[in-house]
Order: sequence, then C-alpha cells, then structure tokens
Amino acid sequence: MKRDLNLLSASQAVDGICAGHFSSEELTEACLARIEETDKTIRAWSHLDPDEALASARMMDLIRKSGRATGPLHGVPIGLKDVIDTADMPTERGSTIFAGRQPEADACIVERLREAGAVILGKTKTTELAFMHPTDTTNPHDPLRTPGGSSSGSAAAVAAHQVPLAIGTQTNGSMIRPASFCGVYGFKPTRGVISRRGILQTSASLDQVGGFARTLEDIALLTDVIGSYDPSDPLSFARPRPQMVRGARAEAPVQPNIACFDLPFNSRLDNDARAGLDALISRLGHRVERLPPTPQMTDLVAVQATIHEYEINQHLGRAFENHWDLISNTVQPVIERARKISIAQYEDALEAKRSYEVSIAEHFNDFDAILAPCATGEAPRLTTNTTGDPVFCTLWTLAGLPAISLPLLVGENNLPIGVQLIGGLEEDDKLLRTAAWMQAKLVGHANSPET
Amino acid sequence: MKRDLNLLSASQAVDGICAGHFSSEELTEACLARIEETDKTIRAWSHLDPDEALASARMMDLIRKSGRATGPLHGVPIGLKDVIDTADMPTERGSTIFAGRQPEADACIVERLREAGAVILGKTKTTELAFMHPTDTTNPHDPLRTPGGSSSGSAAAVAAHQVPLAIGTQTNGSMIRPASFCGVYGFKPTRGVISRRGILQTSASLDQVGGFARTLEDIALLTDVIGSYDPSDPLSFARPRPQMVRGARAEAPVQPNIACFDLPFNSRLDNDARAGLDALISRLGHRVERLPPTPQMTDLVAVQATIHEYEINQHLGRAFENHWDLISNTVQPVIERARKISIAQYEDALEAKRSYEVSIAEHFNDFDAILAPCATGEAPRLTTNTTGDPVFCTLWTLAGLPAISLPLLVGENNLPIGVQLIGGLEEDDKLLRTAAWMQAKLVGHANSPET
Repeated sequence: MKRDLNLLSASQAVDGICAGHFSSEELTEACLARIEETDKTIRAWSHLDPDEALASARMMDLIRKSGRATGPLHGVPIGLKDVIDTADMPTERGSTIFAGRQPEADACIVERLREAGAVILGKTKTTELAFMHPTDTTNPHDPLRTPGGSSSGSAAAVAAHQVPLAIGTQTNGSMIRPASFCGVYGFKPTRGVISRRGILQTSASLDQVGGFARTLEDIALLTDVIGSYDPSDPLSFARPRPQMVRGARAEAPVQPNIACFDLPFNSRLDNDARAGLDALISRLGHRVERLPPTPQMTDLVAVQATIHEYEINQHLGRAFENHWDLISNTVQPVIERARKISIAQYEDALEAKRSYEVSIAEHFNDFDAILAPCATGEAPRLTTNTTGDPVFCTLWTLAGLPAISLPLLVGENNLPIGVQLIGGLEEDDKLLRTAAWMQAKLVGHANSPET
Repeated sequence: MKRDLNLLSASQAVDGICAGHFSSEELTEACLARIEETDKTIRAWSHLDPDEALASARMMDLIRKSGRATGPLHGVPIGLKDVIDTADMPTERGSTIFAGRQPEADACIVERLREAGAVILGKTKTTELAFMHPTDTTNPHDPLRTPGGSSSGSAAAVAAHQVPLAIGTQTNGSMIRPASFCGVYGFKPTRGVISRRGILQTSASLDQVGGFARTLEDIALLTDVIGSYDPSDPLSFARPRPQMVRGARAEAPVQPNIACFDLPFNSRLDNDARAGLDALISRLGHRVERLPPTPQMTDLVAVQATIHEYEINQHLGRAFENHWDLISNTVQPVIERARKISIAQYEDALEAKRSYEVSIAEHFNDFDAILAPCATGEAPRLTTNTTGDPVFCTLWTLAGLPAISLPLLVGENNLPIGVQLIGGLEEDDKLLRTAAWMQAKLVGHANSPET
C-alpha cells in the first residue's frame, strides 16, 4: 500500500488516478489507514464503512481502466457532514433524535459528487443539529482543543490528512471558523450557488453549503462540482455559476483593493490574532484600506440570531417538542428563547437583513474583497465546552456573500489562525482570484504548503 | 438589427456574446426575425413568445455586462420539443388531450440549460405524443416533404437557421431520421447520460433524449450541458459522463475501424441513398469492414415494437381510454394492437433486448463505430402522410447505444441524406472523435460548412 497518498491534494490525486500512477483503491486505502491511525483521538467520523468505500473506489478504477469517462473528482475520497442525506449511509444530524435515520434519497450535492466520480468515504461529525452543542471531535493540531463547529468532523478530517476534501454547511460561522481553527481552506460560496435539497434545514434564510480542502485550487475544484441550479431550493438561482477553478487560477488584472472594517467585535480578538492580522495588513500596504464600521453592524448580530433561532424552531419545532429530553442543555435554552420571538420581531429582522444586504453590496463597487478575522484567535480549549465564537462570520453569512478562510497565520501556541476574505454576491471567481493574489504576495506562491 | 446572426453556430454565438461583439438580444432578434420570415411555411413552433424570449436574452446580456459568470451556452437561443416540461411555457405534447397543459416544474434538462445561460426560445412541434401521427411541419429544404418525426419541429427549426440548437427525443428513430431529412446533426447519446425527468414518458425502457445542431462541435457542447446524473430517472447512471466536446475535438490516435452490417432492411433503401453510402464507404477504404447481419437482427424490429407499444399503453393507457376520440386514426389501431400484447410477450421482448445488448456490445471490442443509413433516403413527400421509416434506427436505439446523424450525402432531388455512426455504450466521446475523423476525411475539415 502506498501509505502517503493521503497527503495529496484532490487535484494531484485525480491527476494521478487518471494517469494510472496509482488507483483510487490505493488512495482510499491510504485515507482509511490514516483514519485508523488518528481517529481514535480526533473522532472526525460518525459513519465509515471501509468495505463500501473500497468497493466504490474499485468501481471508479474499473471505469477508468475500461476507457470510459472519468470525472473531475474521479476516485477522490470525500467526507460529508452528517446533515447531508445519503441514500446508502445513515444521516443522523448529530442528534439522537435522528439515531438510525437512513434517507431514501441522496442530497442534490451527492448526485453531483457521484457524477464527478468522487468516492463518498463516509459521514463526518456535526454538532447537534448543526447548531451549538459540541461533538467529541478534537482539533488535529492539539487534542485538547476544539476543531470548531458545527462542521467539526469535516474540517478536522481534512486537516488531519484523513481525506483531501469534505463538505460542510454554515448558517453563521460553521465553516469559516473550523477551517480557521484547523488550518485548512474553508469556502462558502455565494448563497444559492449550491443546492440545499436533502440537507438538514435549520434556517431557510441563512443555511449555506461549502467545502474544505488543503489547497485553494482544491476548494475551487470541489465547488465547481457541487454547484448547480435546483429549483427545489428557493434560494438557488437559474443562471450560470461563477467558475471557481478559473477564478482561482486567474491572474489579477490590476492589484486588488481590499477593505478592512474596524469591526465592533474586534475587541474580542486575542492579542496574537490581532497582531498577526495587523502584520499581514501592513505587508499588503496600500492595497488595504481600513474603514470605520457602519452603524448597523453591531445590531446585525441580534438580527442574525432572531432569524436563525426563529427559523430553527419553525423547521424543527415538532422534533423539539416530541423529543425535548433528547436535546442538549446547550440548545434547550435557545429553543425556549426562540419560541418567544414574535412574527413581528422576525419580520423586522428580515427587513433589517434586506436593508443591510443593499448597503454592504455597495462596498464591492470600490473594493475587490473585504478582509476580516475568521474567529477570535486560536481554537478554544475543549474545557470551554464551545466550538468558538462565530461573530466574525455573522455579517457575511447574513448577506449570503462568498467567504473563504485562508490558513495564513499562526498563533502564540503554534496553532493555525485563518484570515477571512469576503467577496461580492456571485463574484466568487473574483474572490478566489483575490485570495490567490494575496496568498502569492504573502507566502510567495498561490497555494500554501502542506500544513 | 444584425440579421445574419442567426446563421452562427452556438459556439460562435456564445463566443461573440461573451466577447461583447453582439448581444444575446440581437441574436435572439435575428432568430425571431428568421422565424417570422420562414415559419408560415415551415411551422416548426408550437409555442413562441417573442417578448418573453427577448426578456430572457436581455437578462443574459445584463449578467454578462455586470461581470458575473457566463455559462457555456450564455445567451444562445434553443428550441425544446414540446414533450419537455417548462414551468413558464405550455407543454402540450402534440395532442389535444393535453391542450393548455402548463407544467409546474421544468424538466431536468431545462434546469441544466438555464444554468448554462441558454435562452429557451420556445417549444417545437412534436408528432402526436412523440409517436407516429405527423405534425403540419414542413421540410426546410422542400415544403412538400416531411421533416421527419417525431422531433419534427426541432430538426426543422435548426435546419432553417431559426435557432442554432434544439432538443429532441428518440424512442425508435425520432431524432436520427429527422436530422437526416433536414440535413443537420442529430445526436442521441448513450441511454442514461441525459435525465428524462419532466419529459413525456412513452416508453420507460426506450425513451432517450438528444440534440440537433448545425455543427459537430455544437452538438457536443449541447450534450455536455444537458447530461447529468438524476436518480429520479431509473436509467440515469451515477458516474461520470463521456466528455463530448473533448471527444469531438480529439484527434483519433490511430485510424478508426468501422463496421457496416448488410442489414436485412437494406432492400428498403432508395437507389440514391444506397449509391451514396456505397461511394462513401469506398472512399473510406480499408477503414470499413462489411459484416453479415446477425441472425437476430430481423426479429429485433418486432421486439422493439412489442416493448414500445406495450409501454406506451402502460404509461398513457388512461389518457387513451378517457380521450379516445382525441387520438388520431394513425395511432388508434396501434393502441388497439398494444392492448392485446400479453405480459409474457412483453417479458420475452425485454429478454430478447437484453440478450441482443450483450451480443452487439462485443462488436465494439473490434470496431470504433458502426456505420449505417439513417433512413431509407431523402425525406418522403407530405402526401405519404408519414414521417418516414425508422427501421435504420431501431437496432441502435433498442440497445441504448449512442448514435449520430452526419449530413454528408445529397440525394437525387438535391435533398440531404444523413449517415449514421453508432458507438459503444458510454463511449460517446470516442464516437464523436470517430465522427470528426470521418468528416475530415470525406469533407476535408472537421465541421461541415453551413448548409
């Protein structure tokens, strides 16, 4: 067995498989061996069937050897956050309420992944109902710290080289934050690029989907595959999607202009995170303009909470009522609060969201991207019993803007700290181009080295 | 208005639109003007709303001008056979039984087309329920002749330069035959490449979907767009699709080997069609090997008829019962015959089909493609009251093989006659590569000139 194949990026892996240098079975074996070796500590996976995964891999090898078509992720193993329905695997949503749940159909993105030739390796751990209560997953860089959440297992599995790609979801900060804590790329494209059919609905207005990878090119490749128009998702749009790989590979025609707000939450930043970000900004020189916060920004955290909590209770209220004793005591008080939100409060929050979307969009007339922290700093210790503060993601997720976490900083405990870049609506390709530019300027090449 | 834009291929059109040389609105105006000018005679369209089409085109122009992503068919008008559901247009299936029918949802391929940026220009005429009874559509090369069927309007619209692309379906010979009669490319890829969700079901086992275009590259481009895995179609397969554009552009690594059967139906060929095909084969020299027919071949026409008729009655039996007086006297006797087919006869036919699929597949170990006529010759006169004999398509559609009609011959009345190339299952890319090779060898370049 070629044990180090699990270190490859997805792009390298698919090239090697299609060229016949190694097989999907060998790659999958290497990933499974790495999981075997590390997952007793990391605990990234909620469902894994090695025999089934190897059978899928052998099928992909057979297709390639027969001369039939190969796909853009041919034979590449991927992990799916366990809120994503799979017809051939359980999907338990991180809650004993749904223990043993086996969906009848694949989620739309699973259809796209199968069509691309990906090997669905298994399901990764999600916090309870993709909300606040932590999993038992640990951070691959420090087993005493959280990987972040709610896409805990997906971020940890990619960071631990268990799998080159994984899917996550984000309603507030559930992808960008774990990507930052785990030192991988996390990308949540524009709201509506990726269909949410067959994915646990926690907030119809806010739920979004994205991917984790260890290179910028991989995250683009994955997003091109899973993006598609699907009218069964009311936020899905019936027009072309930004071309992510093209964006990530493009040269910026002129040096980009980047905005950085003095966010009202910046006081929550750890000292090392603030210092790291300041140093990074100073290296970018005149390309970054510091802006004062807009007056709305402080209030938007409450706006997000109102919408998120009202809608999770709307979508899952019956499950909460019927299984109150199966809900964590982290989530119970939130649900109790949610039940008291009036329709008027909810509608005011939606109106505030719409008004903010118009005002934030204007910044992308002057700037190619917004630069922001991903989180308060290094991953919190498990003893805090949280997955970290999502506040640095709230503003951008609320507006449905594309956001990427780039693993560019290191904190005082030698743990990764990500930097967030946010783009204009449906300008994901430009965002990835700006990210590649920034990375090349800071690190000297477009994709960061293996962490 | 740039009136000649309607002469462009889809590839040329999308390049021109994305480069800003002309707009989708101008292209759509040119197509609409051409329809206005010619469709009183041709009668290719069953539904056309110029204002809606122009609004779609302007939307695509707006997206391009805003710098947002463009798709592979950005701003290119396309016609859809009126068996394909559209949420924003009627879909009447060529039958007064379904007059005024307005679907709630788009067909799967319409989702793919919208995502690719195509402008759905309107719906094209289909024979009654995509079966035998002709439409009033005329052949663009001779108004006294049929365009073929059942995809009559789609083939005629593309041939008449009313639209660069159109979608058709084929259960027996409903795409390859009209493509041959109208002098355009018709391509029906491997069964299962394209989802049939939202398309009139006339035979679950035999219905297939494909496209018409005026160049080989266009037909490949269109098929790449509309192919996708969709588990709601039981024949759709969950693995990568052949890459059509790559196939059509590829150089054959060695000169291909082509088989040509002495089909039991060759006696039905018109003299000019036989002579044209013989001359073409002789120009290909040793690349073509003539083979005797297999003993099964004669019987397979009855096998196809049993399955097709049994299943159309199964799927549409209730509509036939409830609206007997709305069914043509062409179809009525077929339905009466279908009702008498026993389950045992049907199951025997399915078994014969399966056994034949295994034996025909073996030929693709030795040959890159099979060469065959598309039809008996030039398009029959309208006075025959048929859309022509589908027998030269039956064997290949029955096995779900990819088949393409190439407009390479001209008959004694100066009317087009197509040549059919058939490929192995899921080897559509190789089939298109072989087609490009053959065309270059015979015509001197990979795509034939504008007809």
